[in-house]
Amino acid sequence: MISEKMKAYVAGSSAIRAMFEEGKKMAEKYGAENVYDYSLGNPSIPAPERVKEAIIEVLNEENSLVVHGYMNNSGYEDVRETIAESINKKQGTNFSMKNIIMTVGAAGGLNVILKTFLNPGDEVIVFVPYFGEYRSYVANFDGKIVEVETDDQFMIDAKKLEAAVTPKTKAVIVNNPNNPTGVIYSEEVIKAMAEVLVAKEKEYGTSIYLISDEPYRELAYGVDVPYLTKYYKNTIVGYSYSKSLSLPGERIGYLVIPSEIDSFEDVLSAANTANRILGYVNAPSLMQKVIAKCVDEKCEVEKYRKNGEYLYDNLVKFGFSAVKPQGAFYLFLKSPVEDEKEFVSKAKEFNLLLVPGSSFGKSGYVRLAYCVSFDTVKNSMPAFEKLAKAYNLI
Amino acid sequence: MISEKMKAYVAGSSAIRAMFEEGKKMAEKYGAENVYDYSLGNPSIPAPERVKEAIIEVLNEENSLVVHGYMNNSGYEDVRETIAESINKKQGTNFSMKNIIMTVGAAGGLNVILKTFLNPGDEVIVFVPYFGEYRSYVANFDGKIVEVETDDQFMIDAKKLEAAVTPKTKAVIVNNPNNPTGVIYSEEVIKAMAEVLVAKEKEYGTSIYLISDEPYRELAYGVDVPYLTKYYKNTIVGYSYSKSLSLPGERIGYLVIPSEIDSFEDVLSAANTANRILGYVNAPSLMQKVIAKCVDEKCEVEKYRKNGEYLYDNLVKFGFSAVKPQGAFYLFLKSPVEDEKEFVSKAKEFNLLLVPGSSFGKSGYVRLAYCVSFDTVKNSMPAFEKLAKAYNLI
Repeated sequence: MISEKMKAYVAGSSAIRAMFEEGKKMAEKYGAENVYDYSLGNPSIPAPERVKEAIIEVLNEENSLVVHGYMNNSGYEDVRETIAESINKKQGTNFSMKNIIMTVGAAGGLNVILKTFLNPGDEVIVFVPYFGEYRSYVANFDGKIVEVETDDQFMIDAKKLEAAVTPKTKAVIVNNPNNPTGVIYSEEVIKAMAEVLVAKEKEYGTSIYLISDEPYRELAYGVDVPYLTKYYKNTIVGYSYSKSLSLPGERIGYLVIPSEIDSFEDVLSAANTANRILGYVNAPSLMQKVIAKCVDEKCEVEKYRKNGEYLYDNLVKFGFSAVKPQGAFYLFLKSPVEDEKEFVSKAKEFNLLLVPGSSFGKSGYVRLAYCVSFDTVKNSMPAFEKLAKAYNLI
Repeated sequence: MISEKMKAYVAGSSAIRAMFEEGKKMAEKYGAENVYDYSLGNPSIPAPERVKEAIIEVLNEENSLVVHGYMNNSGYEDVRETIAESINKKQGTNFSMKNIIMTVGAAGGLNVILKTFLNPGDEVIVFVPYFGEYRSYVANFDGKIVEVETDDQFMIDAKKLEAAVTPKTKAVIVNNPNNPTGVIYSEEVIKAMAEVLVAKEKEYGTSIYLISDEPYRELAYGVDVPYLTKYYKNTIVGYSYSKSLSLPGERIGYLVIPSEIDSFEDVLSAANTANRILGYVNAPSLMQKVIAKCVDEKCEVEKYRKNGEYLYDNLVKFGFSAVKPQGAFYLFLKSPVEDEKEFVSKAKEFNLLLVPGSSFGKSGYVRLAYCVSFDTVKNSMPAFEKLAKAYNLI
């Protein structure tokens, strides 16, 4: 009785979420301390204490009808102004309230902007490997995902991008720092990508919108993360506080729609309407007020870096192969056998929960989300060692 | 550059929202106390004090990683169990946690269930007049809205429903208490509707899902609101705390998917997946925990009843014509002239903000959302009197 589209989804439901559910069951069976769950990007660092203070401040200081009430679909004006100023201070940009739409997390923001742009059959370029949910988001609007392979360091390959752009290319999604690889595209890489897009827009007489999905912006290990609006005019940024403030369950983020993009007024108006009619209506109200008070909070990124380095160093020592993460909290490990699903099954025998690379459009690899506690990382080492031995790596 | 679908929306953007924006501008110009804004269903009764207490309790009692973290896409299990038990206690039903999916408000829930069911071209029946956003929600999944007229008391007409059901009818949306009319469908009306649907399912060998959109359930003025799962097997309920707890900005609600419906397991699995891939991911986490502590809070419905009665009695006295509201906080007034948009413009001259009935599929009427303060209602009387005089009603 369910729709044809949903039949396919239900059959091939999210491997990450399935692993998350399985991890909870295994934790009940073996004890949480004996299960090494690297499956989901659910931060282990609590939200800063300031978040709790800010919630109580908002409740005490502001009128309850305002705090919990409807506002413009694009969000509270004071919140949007605060965010615009915060970005300007950090990035040297020139945004104002009118360039910001508050969204139900980055996932909400991506759906809003894809609904804004996509006609059925329009192409959206992603760089392999990529966050698998992009497939669903593009399919929601009957767009077509076009996968472009990256180089052996998972960097964007401008030549391959150039070959993939067509007159039907409506958008390109960039995720920096990257899920699932943990790499960061440098300024040089971004410039080369932008050059291709500018040339192709000119060649085809089209607008190609670059969608910069940035939930991991603050999670960079001493490496600069270029702000893409400064490199390419038709850039729209999607942001979320899920990782930087450890609020993934709260569904709070925003879109930046710069005034310089083609058809700015139409895009803004359509995005605002899409936010409403997709059923979000608006981003959760109390949390909007809360994050406005927390824009200068720092994320404890050193903890993730420590996990990532320890994990990388030891896995390499055990004979595994990976590109060293520069940010986010993901490590993309090469499977020692071609069928990485077999490798994932074998890892599960040692209570190690990994996600197959095919979920990210790249088989032969597995993703580790190391946003777990350092103890979990350390305690999982004997299991990884046994796994390496099972494949005769050591 | 925006999609064809969005072009149409941007052109005919929500009249309600446009009025809401205009109301704010008028309030700045004339002073809020001199503008009588009956445009938006934004409650004027603050959230119960218990909501604030509950927020602080959750923050103090529970682990921040749980309160703000990811959970199952369908919501926290303890919250869903609490809600199921609360419905069972009130309605004599037999739901458990597995029948409840927490959603981003009722709008989120409706989109989730429509994505679950609709193939392009599938028909969704609505009863005129109806909440205009249903049009967008159905169009999101390329479904077709089928409008069925109600009788002169805005009650469902079983004969007209019978004539409208086809083999392509996938769903029927019922909104009880009703927006925009304020009427409540009685048990008798519901039974007659259910009989038609059962007969048509049998005739066509199809499943027709009844979607009961119930954000106003608690806002009934001493009249019973039937719980539809008890009258028709293939019923799915959508609920929101926007009105009952005055939390419209927080986007918190749920779907009830009874175990008895056709293809239960598939529907449940698809709805859970749709909640994720539509970009909601999950209902806001802190608010899930909060409403679980507030399931027994009472809505101050008497305040809305008082507004509604005062408004109805006086408008009738001024010569206007309407069906007396039995719930929600809406009154659907007959326009004294055929073109109700002219009437809306005239009303604006007296600082009265009303919404044209055509936004609800019924021209010749206007909607008043009387979820304003009683002072606003009282103070608006001279303006209504002048409006009545302008049309020679008195």
